[in-house]
Amino acid sequence: MNVTEAELAPLPRVLYEPLVRAALVEDFGLGGDLTSEATVPAGTRASAAFVARARGTIAGIDIACEAIRIVDPRATIAIDVRDGEAVDRGTKIARIDADARALLGAERTALNVLSHLSGIATATARYVAAAGNRVAIVETRKTLPGLRALQKYAVRAGGGKNHRFRLDDAILIKDNHIALAGGVPRALDAARERAGHLVKIEVEVDNLSQLDEALAHPRGADVILLDNFSIDDLTEAVRRTRGRTILEASGGITLDSVAAVAATGVDVISVGALTHSVIALDIALDMV
Amino acid sequence: MNVTEAELAPLPRVLYEPLVRAALVEDFGLGGDLTSEATVPAGTRASAAFVARARGTIAGIDIACEAIRIVDPRATIAIDVRDGEAVDRGTKIARIDADARALLGAERTALNVLSHLSGIATATARYVAAAGNRVAIVETRKTLPGLRALQKYAVRAGGGKNHRFRLDDAILIKDNHIALAGGVPRALDAARERAGHLVKIEVEVDNLSQLDEALAHPRGADVILLDNFSIDDLTEAVRRTRGRTILEASGGITLDSVAAVAATGVDVISVGALTHSVIALDIALDMV
Amino acid sequence: MNVTEAELAPLPRVLYEPLVRAALVEDFGLGGDLTSEATVPAGTRASAAFVARARGTIAGIDIACEAIRIVDPRATIAIDVRDGEAVDRGTKIARIDADARALLGAERTALNVLSHLSGIATATARYVAAAGNRVAIVETRKTLPGLRALQKYAVRAGGGKNHRFRLDDAILIKDNHIALAGGVPRALDAARERAGHLVKIEVEVDNLSQLDEALAHPRGADVILLDNFSIDDLTEAVRRTRGRTILEASGGITLDSVAAVAATGVDVISVGALTHSVIALDIALDMV
Amino acid sequence: MNVTEAELAPLPRVLYEPLVRAALVEDFGLGGDLTSEATVPAGTRASAAFVARARGTIAGIDIACEAIRIVDPRATIAIDVRDGEAVDRGTKIARIDADARALLGAERTALNVLSHLSGIATATARYVAAAGNRVAIVETRKTLPGLRALQKYAVRAGGGKNHRFRLDDAILIKDNHIALAGGVPRALDAARERAGHLVKIEVEVDNLSQLDEALAHPRGADVILLDNFSIDDLTEAVRRTRGRTILEASGGITLDSVAAVAATGVDVISVGALTHSVIALDIALDMV
Amino acid sequence: MNVTEAELAPLPRVLYEPLVRAALVEDFGLGGDLTSEATVPAGTRASAAFVARARGTIAGIDIACEAIRIVDPRATIAIDVRDGEAVDRGTKIARIDADARALLGAERTALNVLSHLSGIATATARYVAAAGNRVAIVETRKTLPGLRALQKYAVRAGGGKNHRFRLDDAILIKDNHIALAGGVPRALDAARERAGHLVKIEVEVDNLSQLDEALAHPRGADVILLDNFSIDDLTEAVRRTRGRTILEASGGITLDSVAAVAATGVDVISVGALTHSVIALDIALDMV
Amino acid sequence: MNVTEAELAPLPRVLYEPLVRAALVEDFGLGGDLTSEATVPAGTRASAAFVARARGTIAGIDIACEAIRIVDPRATIAIDVRDGEAVDRGTKIARIDADARALLGAERTALNVLSHLSGIATATARYVAAAGNRVAIVETRKTLPGLRALQKYAVRAGGGKNHRFRLDDAILIKDNHIALAGGVPRALDAARERAGHLVKIEVEVDNLSQLDEALAHPRGADVILLDNFSIDDLTEAVRRTRGRTILEASGGITLDSVAAVAATGVDVISVGALTHSVIALDIALDMV
Repeated sequence: MNVTEAELAPLPRVLYEPLVRAALVEDFGLGGDLTSEATVPAGTRASAAFVARARGTIAGIDIACEAIRIVDPRATIAIDVRDGEAVDRGTKIARIDADARALLGAERTALNVLSHLSGIATATARYVAAAGNRVAIVETRKTLPGLRALQKYAVRAGGGKNHRFRLDDAILIKDNHIALAGGVPRALDAARERAGHLVKIEVEVDNLSQLDEALAHPRGADVILLDNFSIDDLTEAVRRTRGRTILEASGGITLDSVAAVAATGVDVISVGALTHSVIALDIALDMV
Repeated sequence: MNVTEAELAPLPRVLYEPLVRAALVEDFGLGGDLTSEATVPAGTRASAAFVARARGTIAGIDIACEAIRIVDPRATIAIDVRDGEAVDRGTKIARIDADARALLGAERTALNVLSHLSGIATATARYVAAAGNRVAIVETRKTLPGLRALQKYAVRAGGGKNHRFRLDDAILIKDNHIALAGGVPRALDAARERAGHLVKIEVEVDNLSQLDEALAHPRGADVILLDNFSIDDLTEAVRRTRGRTILEASGGITLDSVAAVAATGVDVISVGALTHSVIALDIALDMV
Repeated sequence: MNVTEAELAPLPRVLYEPLVRAALVEDFGLGGDLTSEATVPAGTRASAAFVARARGTIAGIDIACEAIRIVDPRATIAIDVRDGEAVDRGTKIARIDADARALLGAERTALNVLSHLSGIATATARYVAAAGNRVAIVETRKTLPGLRALQKYAVRAGGGKNHRFRLDDAILIKDNHIALAGGVPRALDAARERAGHLVKIEVEVDNLSQLDEALAHPRGADVILLDNFSIDDLTEAVRRTRGRTILEASGGITLDSVAAVAATGVDVISVGALTHSVIALDIALDMV
Repeated sequence: MNVTEAELAPLPRVLYEPLVRAALVEDFGLGGDLTSEATVPAGTRASAAFVARARGTIAGIDIACEAIRIVDPRATIAIDVRDGEAVDRGTKIARIDADARALLGAERTALNVLSHLSGIATATARYVAAAGNRVAIVETRKTLPGLRALQKYAVRAGGGKNHRFRLDDAILIKDNHIALAGGVPRALDAARERAGHLVKIEVEVDNLSQLDEALAHPRGADVILLDNFSIDDLTEAVRRTRGRTILEASGGITLDSVAAVAATGVDVISVGALTHSVIALDIALDMV
Repeated sequence: MNVTEAELAPLPRVLYEPLVRAALVEDFGLGGDLTSEATVPAGTRASAAFVARARGTIAGIDIACEAIRIVDPRATIAIDVRDGEAVDRGTKIARIDADARALLGAERTALNVLSHLSGIATATARYVAAAGNRVAIVETRKTLPGLRALQKYAVRAGGGKNHRFRLDDAILIKDNHIALAGGVPRALDAARERAGHLVKIEVEVDNLSQLDEALAHPRGADVILLDNFSIDDLTEAVRRTRGRTILEASGGITLDSVAAVAATGVDVISVGALTHSVIALDIALDMV
Repeated sequence: MNVTEAELAPLPRVLYEPLVRAALVEDFGLGGDLTSEATVPAGTRASAAFVARARGTIAGIDIACEAIRIVDPRATIAIDVRDGEAVDRGTKIARIDADARALLGAERTALNVLSHLSGIATATARYVAAAGNRVAIVETRKTLPGLRALQKYAVRAGGGKNHRFRLDDAILIKDNHIALAGGVPRALDAARERAGHLVKIEVEVDNLSQLDEALAHPRGADVILLDNFSIDDLTEAVRRTRGRTILEASGGITLDSVAAVAATGVDVISVGALTHSVIALDIALDMV
């Protein structure tokens, strides 16, 4: 179920380094780590490891280690678990030898990002396992401000795929758009008219008759989002669509219900909770 | 149990406006909201409301509305529920009249921050209600990068108080510091020696004998953190301390256990999950 | 041929305001406009107009006026020509009444952005006129650092459509990718395997036999880019494709050749020069 | 005609590195290079070269290579052509060995800046060659937002010199200033009165009688700008000035007319098109 | 001796607003003004005034008031003393009516910038008064990081003029440059060869024979800096120069010695202490 | 009296590097160091040293050297005097071997920060020496915008301690707060009610009767600030307090009066001038 190293492309460093620096500054304030400076003798070395305290899937280990490298460029770091790999309680994720004050000063910044992203990857991996390989598990745009690139990367680390990144890379016609446009056909016409040739169009439908409208459209949507459909209606939607477009199911799908949704034959299942309600994976920095 | 408007000081706008702008840019990308521009006629007005879809406590309504004002400076907004107030499923939090394209373009940015912060406030309020008024519920530094000011504000909105904001505003001597300093007394000596006169000192102890060491120190800590103590040990710790210092309990305290912890007589209960594992409060933007 | 106001959605202000401020600071340096401060009496008012000195299509008038509003928030500005509209030599684009020092200080910043974006819109409009309505004229990613959002907006103002905005919103498999992937079919397989459900896939082919490979692929590309094809080969490509996928022609297409390319029946013509080799439209700020 | 390495001082890296990072982020968005990640196996190495596809003069090779170093700090790069040197079609400018995904991801960012700056250097070198060594070819403040430092550097790479950098480093009294100040003498008086001792004063004149006014001024301008003068009037202006001040010619001077303008004996010729209407030099990244 | 309102051009707001916002964030941290929020009832209004506690010259009142407007956009502010005007102990500089919490939160940020800049203006005005009107008092590049635009503005407010703003707006050949270039004549030759036509050249000389070298140069410097000359040598330097170039005296000139230096007939006196060793003017915010 | 290397924790580099880069850009502008580029042959090496020209205490040597490393990453730098150490006139602080142009280009930026921070450290060390070891010398929030972290670090380098860093890390109830709260007891009550458990509370009193009020408060302040007390009143205040709270003296305390103030037995003496009125330590970069 894990994403192997070869399959998961790392997030380019230029996309996360400024965030890590900002997080360190957020924690250091103007005076730095008063506690470590007061209690740890200057020059003390520390050997430590990021250790999982619960089962899960790792995401963000490079990002966490970047925090340590910024405060101690001479730290030596050995990463044992790559993003996308599963861990058990007690697994060492990375081993670090660094200046003790620097390490303790960066510890919380590193852990905050690692445990958050690993929480996302862990949840994603559970949905992927429950849903089976045929269907794609994707997140939504319900992300936290400034963290979208990282959160969507963590979904990939968990074996999921990504929904659109933002408002400019795909058209997703929702209920409000349909209402303001004057119905599904008009909204689809307008979207086809305006969309560039590399922009996919998805339309949200709330019931089977709207689905029929969307399917009947001469230049129909590339993807149809079945919002809050019952399992029966999802099954019927798959039957009526006969593979002509991609079908995405969404709306309150949980780890308990995802297998049943997947069994209906939809292509994509989107789960907002993957990024909007993240349970951090418990990870600690243990001195060794 | 709610924090009334008079009691909760709003977060200064200068602390959140850049974040809101960055979040809008994160969502708009380079091309803006393709969908609304394609499907909604230019100049269309929309009346809408932020509506709670679940019970909870609101935090971040000014911040969410800032997103809308940035994209439509002429929007009229009436806020019905202030931060810190409780809502039921269906409660209108704010009513908005704005340009339809602008409103739909900012909708997700606004909701992402509002539902996250309200999720924090809601959880905090539940802990506060369970623990009773005598004890303070506080968060930790287990926050998300770039969001600490907002997350800590949301804790206040939920009726909690704040632990230290960052590494430079208080000394918190943890197990690693104690080990590297050579024990509790030496760590406390070093901290007292180095701390400024406005810096409080807290020391984490793992058992009652470490507590005794801390209490016996001539210039003892201002606060003692009882980490992962059983209820019995917390009770004993309160007895031994006899009010000489503030006692903070921490370590895996949940909504189920918080009342029992509070009943031991500790002064402060810190809950990392308040900010590291946030369940978003379900809030929608409904057209009216 | 012009894009009417109703059709061209304005660029959200949050996407260009920081750039305008940075451009003003770039020009003001640390000391501001020495010349105007020395030679123009304080408090002098000026009435002026942006006036076209050549025929063309306007883009960026709101952005240019933002520069003036930043230095004089009380300026009154009347915009006579909206983005996407054509002007003749001598047409007044906007009329401004402002503090004279402020206006002269912001003049160059305003004109630099307005004449550059109008240059893009003008060239685009000429390509669109030459190619006719059936084919879409699009730019490429050959844009200038920091200016992509504005340059792509100017293409839309000129009646063009947009190619992908950046590397994350569509897959475009070029010759180097094909070589490293081991041929067109393998590259397409890999892309389909990895792409999210809202990501279109385009593949570049250099000759008709590569086109056949692409067309023969069971889950073929959404778009095929015919790179540096002769007119005859473009015609043949259109014949062989029979509307099964979108065809894009690219490679050194000029205003002289675009009509012939359009006549082959391709769907999209991409022109790198629209943004990489921009001839500024001559626009001046005339005192009136 | 080339500027030798010893003569052209490199642009300090601190002035362009943030721009390169921002350009990479602009192109990577939130998801990075989907295409290369999908089609190029992880760990693949690539050998490539920046190759000129047309004759010209190079500027920005260090800046382009910075883009590659940012995405692959272990890339090995050999620069064969330094900024200011001429290339023929087919000349290898730099050879690179790097991670294939990283290289393809940074390719467009690198080429966009290199071809733009080399376009400026190429045009400048042509003007310099046509005008001869005695006269200085300079650009104006008609630059693109955020790119002024780089564009002015490219002019130097092409053998040109720089006009003022911004509004605070020299006084340039134009027609509007003269009108608002009440004539050339009053404007010059005011400028002399207010200017610091290291600020040069230039005044724009539109005809020979204004030139006489400027020359007659007791503390005359350091430089006089002859705006839109005919060749005859330029010749006459040089005769009347007798070397007492520097003379700059400007206004629609093209590669065709620059030799004749230079022959009049003016000291400086300013050409706005050098930076406002740049034809990119065609440069490609070829795999080798 | 004061600079009247008409003469001192205000610093463009775009040059100081980001600094004021950053200073407020620096002071607010993540939690804001704990004290005012705790002790001042929400909604309390306050009337206050910036009041001078010592004689001096004001600079930065708009910048200080910007801090208050940012935290309370509805504050009403009446500015009684403009930048460049003298005040006595007790003079009200501006009167403010604002939200009490906001005002107290911004007080220190506002006062810090106002008292620093007024300190510069006050010192400058004293030098100007002591030196008399014929000579220009200027600062140097010995400024504080990030504050140069403001500090140089404050010098202008005090009646001084500005030396160069930075390294790119004038050439100042110092002893190290002369040594590395191989003497004054070679350094001047190189500078003339490389300088743009709007760049002035100043050369520092340490004694009268170096002055003779500089004066003898066929295309001599625009300005000669007489570094650490005695009063006698300054007098002799003025005599030898006979008005052929501008003479600047520098090197440890104090309020006690400036009149004697001015009396030698030099044109410009530069005083590093104006910006590197600023004695803040005592200004308070008094509640009224 | 010096702070030894072991005692003074260095400021984390992430807190000052952006400031150093911004200061270099502030000085380089868009064109860089015209003078060095014109007069110093490319590739020239220079050996130089930072040399004290006056007695004092050093602070900021790492920060100054960062400026040089940014412009010449291959510079070799040997630091002979660490922050917190005393120097005599002529002491070499650090020796540098670097590219001559780069070194001269960064010289002023490096010296500006080094001489300012060393000026603060020098003054602080003098106050500490005059006051003796028993009392802590601290600065205030009267710092310069953007420089607070560095200025407070320099105070530590001079042997001082720090007052609060900003508005969110301690409560300091001043006269205005007391007035608006309705007296000392009410203000203290409100502060205790609202303050987190790690926030100390200080209250400012203006006379002995206010002191009595503060001392009589059941949950009195952690620190009492005795503002503008005479020596006699300070002595009486110490007597009345009997060690129950920390006493801080403030208000116009100078190097002349600090010993007498210290002799009264107060615990802390705060001196605003340490950061608001800094006399730069004279330091030069000498070529060797």
